[in-house]
Amino acid sequence: MIKVGIIGYGYWGPNLVRNFNALDNCKVICVADARAERLSLVAKNYPTIECVTDANDLLNHSQVDAVIIATPVFTHFDLAKKALQNGKHVLLEKPMASTVAEASELIEIAAKKNLLLMVDHTFLYTGAVQKMKSLIDSDAIGTLRYIDSTRINLGLLQPDINVLWDLAPHDLAILLYLNNLKPYSINATGISHTKNGIENIAYLTVNYQENFIAHFNCSWTSPVKLRTFLVGGSDKMLVYNDLEPAEKLRIYDSGFEVKNHDDRLKLMVEYRAGDIHIPQVSLHEALKEMANDFITSILEQKVPRSTSSLGLEVVRILEISQQSLKQGGKEILL
Amino acid sequence: MIKVGIIGYGYWGPNLVRNFNALDNCKVICVADARAERLSLVAKNYPTIECVTDANDLLNHSQVDAVIIATPVFTHFDLAKKALQNGKHVLLEKPMASTVAEASELIEIAAKKNLLLMVDHTFLYTGAVQKMKSLIDSDAIGTLRYIDSTRINLGLLQPDINVLWDLAPHDLAILLYLNNLKPYSINATGISHTKNGIENIAYLTVNYQENFIAHFNCSWTSPVKLRTFLVGGSDKMLVYNDLEPAEKLRIYDSGFEVKNHDDRLKLMVEYRAGDIHIPQVSLHEALKEMANDFITSILEQKVPRSTSSLGLEVVRILEISQQSLKQGGKEILL
Amino acid sequence: MIKVGIIGYGYWGPNLVRNFNALDNCKVICVADARAERLSLVAKNYPTIECVTDANDLLNHSQVDAVIIATPVFTHFDLAKKALQNGKHVLLEKPMASTVAEASELIEIAAKKNLLLMVDHTFLYTGAVQKMKSLIDSDAIGTLRYIDSTRINLGLLQPDINVLWDLAPHDLAILLYLNNLKPYSINATGISHTKNGIENIAYLTVNYQENFIAHFNCSWTSPVKLRTFLVGGSDKMLVYNDLEPAEKLRIYDSGFEVKNHDDRLKLMVEYRAGDIHIPQVSLHEALKEMANDFITSILEQKVPRSTSSLGLEVVRILEISQQSLKQGGKEILL
Amino acid sequence: MIKVGIIGYGYWGPNLVRNFNALDNCKVICVADARAERLSLVAKNYPTIECVTDANDLLNHSQVDAVIIATPVFTHFDLAKKALQNGKHVLLEKPMASTVAEASELIEIAAKKNLLLMVDHTFLYTGAVQKMKSLIDSDAIGTLRYIDSTRINLGLLQPDINVLWDLAPHDLAILLYLNNLKPYSINATGISHTKNGIENIAYLTVNYQENFIAHFNCSWTSPVKLRTFLVGGSDKMLVYNDLEPAEKLRIYDSGFEVKNHDDRLKLMVEYRAGDIHIPQVSLHEALKEMANDFITSILEQKVPRSTSSLGLEVVRILEISQQSLKQGGKEILL
Repeated sequence: MIKVGIIGYGYWGPNLVRNFNALDNCKVICVADARAERLSLVAKNYPTIECVTDANDLLNHSQVDAVIIATPVFTHFDLAKKALQNGKHVLLEKPMASTVAEASELIEIAAKKNLLLMVDHTFLYTGAVQKMKSLIDSDAIGTLRYIDSTRINLGLLQPDINVLWDLAPHDLAILLYLNNLKPYSINATGISHTKNGIENIAYLTVNYQENFIAHFNCSWTSPVKLRTFLVGGSDKMLVYNDLEPAEKLRIYDSGFEVKNHDDRLKLMVEYRAGDIHIPQVSLHEALKEMANDFITSILEQKVPRSTSSLGLEVVRILEISQQSLKQGGKEILL
Repeated sequence: MIKVGIIGYGYWGPNLVRNFNALDNCKVICVADARAERLSLVAKNYPTIECVTDANDLLNHSQVDAVIIATPVFTHFDLAKKALQNGKHVLLEKPMASTVAEASELIEIAAKKNLLLMVDHTFLYTGAVQKMKSLIDSDAIGTLRYIDSTRINLGLLQPDINVLWDLAPHDLAILLYLNNLKPYSINATGISHTKNGIENIAYLTVNYQENFIAHFNCSWTSPVKLRTFLVGGSDKMLVYNDLEPAEKLRIYDSGFEVKNHDDRLKLMVEYRAGDIHIPQVSLHEALKEMANDFITSILEQKVPRSTSSLGLEVVRILEISQQSLKQGGKEILL
Repeated sequence: MIKVGIIGYGYWGPNLVRNFNALDNCKVICVADARAERLSLVAKNYPTIECVTDANDLLNHSQVDAVIIATPVFTHFDLAKKALQNGKHVLLEKPMASTVAEASELIEIAAKKNLLLMVDHTFLYTGAVQKMKSLIDSDAIGTLRYIDSTRINLGLLQPDINVLWDLAPHDLAILLYLNNLKPYSINATGISHTKNGIENIAYLTVNYQENFIAHFNCSWTSPVKLRTFLVGGSDKMLVYNDLEPAEKLRIYDSGFEVKNHDDRLKLMVEYRAGDIHIPQVSLHEALKEMANDFITSILEQKVPRSTSSLGLEVVRILEISQQSLKQGGKEILL
Repeated sequence: MIKVGIIGYGYWGPNLVRNFNALDNCKVICVADARAERLSLVAKNYPTIECVTDANDLLNHSQVDAVIIATPVFTHFDLAKKALQNGKHVLLEKPMASTVAEASELIEIAAKKNLLLMVDHTFLYTGAVQKMKSLIDSDAIGTLRYIDSTRINLGLLQPDINVLWDLAPHDLAILLYLNNLKPYSINATGISHTKNGIENIAYLTVNYQENFIAHFNCSWTSPVKLRTFLVGGSDKMLVYNDLEPAEKLRIYDSGFEVKNHDDRLKLMVEYRAGDIHIPQVSLHEALKEMANDFITSILEQKVPRSTSSLGLEVVRILEISQQSLKQGGKEILL
């Protein structure tokens, strides 16, 4: 029975408490939040959970085995470092840290202390992403050619991080999970309508040395909500629409093959536009699977699906994208 | 009665003949195409139209008042130059030329000869674009903040021009038509899956010195066809979906206003998500309106809606975008 | 503070407990269910609620002011009658009873005892139905001409009631709520694929002496889930699609007016197909509003929105529809 | 080379001329229409076609081999009878005649004269209907259980025939084509908002002695256009949506099987909700296939797909449905 403490009871905290509490081999015993009104919600719904306003009380709590950190990104490093130093396993909300340096240091400490450090990239646990992964791994899609993601809506502008740091981690984690190619360089463009230099619209291109490209369109200021993730392969193409209540994934038996590369003006391309297949994908709650993976990985000392090294690569792309944004979209090598 | 000659009877040619013939003050009297099988189609359907295999016969035709050029882009300049020099008015398919230099020279000749030079940016004549224009001009939208366009499908890869030259002219023409801001710089990223260096996927950012940005996502290799054009204003936002049979335009009474720019961590943003309005827009054939504008502008010596100077600016953005693509997405000033 | 007991902790029971508990002026103090495993769920989540396996213990409970009955329809009458006789207010799940006779007797007892008897027609408390009601009452729609409802999906076939008794009460309640016309006659057709005579597909026409008609298409055996409710008026038409996450109601500025009735072959009809408006409708939880209406109506001795007389008319249409079904779709007067 | 004459150059006539003219083994040589302005359209577009204002001139035309009748229904019988008596093959627009008696007499005459009599039920020639037919015939769907069709829009109210005669022939032809079961009885309900007794909304149930039912919802007064045709089978279910530009047919691997019929209260139903498959269906012009079938059937003396006996059964259902409508929805045996 793993005893869990959760720091941060804002938007995501209640979901974490509910899902970790629903597991058999785990118990949430303490929640920390500086805001009294948030703690009173915990007390009302979970009278047996201990509430503390100072996160240090949780980090030093003798009974806590694992700490879940659901606070703003800029606080992640300090909290996680203390937790690891105190011998606690750590689950960090995404993105795991503000810089590559911070993320790397946390990974190092965890390794030294032989503790689990995991990042909550919840989307890796959805039925649709699992289905895409198995299709790609079984070579049903052919050679991957591109990923194109649109994640836009009328969202809450964050005061401290731009729209890429807020929205792109979901899709970057999926990108990194679906294939093993190593990104080569980054371009990012965007705009801030708030005069604080924090972009609310941004476009990110991730270039590869292989014949593959990934592009991410992120916005907090779209009148429509879109969550469209295209995967182009040489044999089949996928469209993952997370807003569809049931038909989240479509497999298009479409593609094209280039037959003649020699003569520029005699380009011969064979097109194929065939049937569409909509597989049933599991509609379980992904957060519950993630919670279970965290606890099971502690108990069985196994590597979780959502590793800290994947989390680090997400932070690396974000960090570089910010440099590119500040240099007019210049290509920056990873 | 304007007598028209059309060069090129490929995909678009039959639509041009049908629409120009349907006008009262105009008559198609000659069609030129090097391919006999294409001319036999003309003969079958329009027995009174003269057919020639050599474009020069049309360009030198004494009775032809105006020449319409619907051939591959790289041939536009030579054909249009001869037509103008022969004293014919000219309508060019989009994009009007392969380079800014060519487009500029054509504009100069037309001016000197006092002839009409127009570009067929058909979309400027659709009911939806007209409605957007009138909403923006009447200040119903507020300050324009961004345009975001997605034009992707499984399309025919062109052997001589990349996907931006093929698909972006539509949306660039709309961009330039809807507002009077002057683009400042360009970034473009993309990929060629055909090893001939011709990009089949490309992403274009058009930056402005004003607080406005435009982005274009173009692909010939998407399993789904999307034609989505978002216009974000400070008061309202528009979504133009050209694939909708009737409900092409949606006006969202949504927006956000930034209240406090001073204190970075106390960002105050007021959101508004209100009703949606779907106006009836004219569903007439845009090509017919364009044809009528061309003929009427000749007869009345007026400036058409789709000017050659707008056509030139489209070519300028395409030319610069190609430079950016070849320099790893580098920002290039216009 | 109204003290509430709930009989039946199946599919709907947990929602009732959660919503009544969330009210300030009410407290769920007892739940009855014959199934021990259902009661253990209550105990786990609401340790302070008393659990009883015999509904009589709840009906006789001295502290219970109001009884909510969420059990199969055929048990409603006996439970509600006892509750009323014991001086408890009663909220019945829909449909309120198996026969008109039963429903009428309950209404009579409640009246005599001066107790509130209400039916949980939850849909009357949704934002979309409220918006339709206000549009109709303010005469924005013009004269009502028809209602056409489709409520189909792959659903659980019920062993004791047919698909009309299961699905139609929602739409019949909305029909009766939206207008004050009195139905005149009923036709119903359908089929049972289960050989037990319980129809799993049924079609119901409600005829009126006024120039108005209503039709209901109900099925448990459709591969697609549809919830489409059309309201045709002389001035405007409404489409209420309950499956839309946000855009539930569309107001069409469409209609037709008959100009010439005299000469059959010179029928003159004027059509209008205009803009579409999608109003923001409240997306609150309707069940909470219903719960609040029940409790407030008790406390303030007011008439609730979802009256027992509306509930009775729903049962009347269902009873007659069953007669029509058994007589080959024959029209039966109400 | 079959020489064809077409009577009626209204809405559908131009499509007929275009498609018959496009065939190799057929030529439209004469068009009859009493309206001079309609004939002038023929003259303009097809200068070689003879135009006559009196249909008799066409019916007596010595060179005409086959007559196509695209006039209002009430004129079909007289025109077709004369054509057959004059030894011409006949293609009738749907529905083929106003009464079963008329339709039967035409069939008899054609048989005696050994002439082809065919009805233009165009939908039988669409890719989607062909795909449904082949799925059903190959037993991929299992036992057919129901068909449910919705064909509604804001349409032109006809002065002489009700909405069932106008819209239902499409779906009734598909119903009769897809399966060989014999309809047993009819119920129809509806309403006329025009006070001329011509229903503009109608609901039609076709009952079968086998465990199968078909229902048709037809309206000229819906704000939304819907064309949804559901086919329920024991193994799979189909949804045919004719408004989808490409994805017209969906195959749902969904169904239910009743396991226990003996004990009413222990109904055991096994549900299955599985993958969805969207097959590519041919998007050719169905009218061209129909035209080709008519001409080929004459030349090869074969039975066409859209037989006159199917056309007769469509008329029979319509005739009976009218009787049911006038008798308050009473079930009437076929």
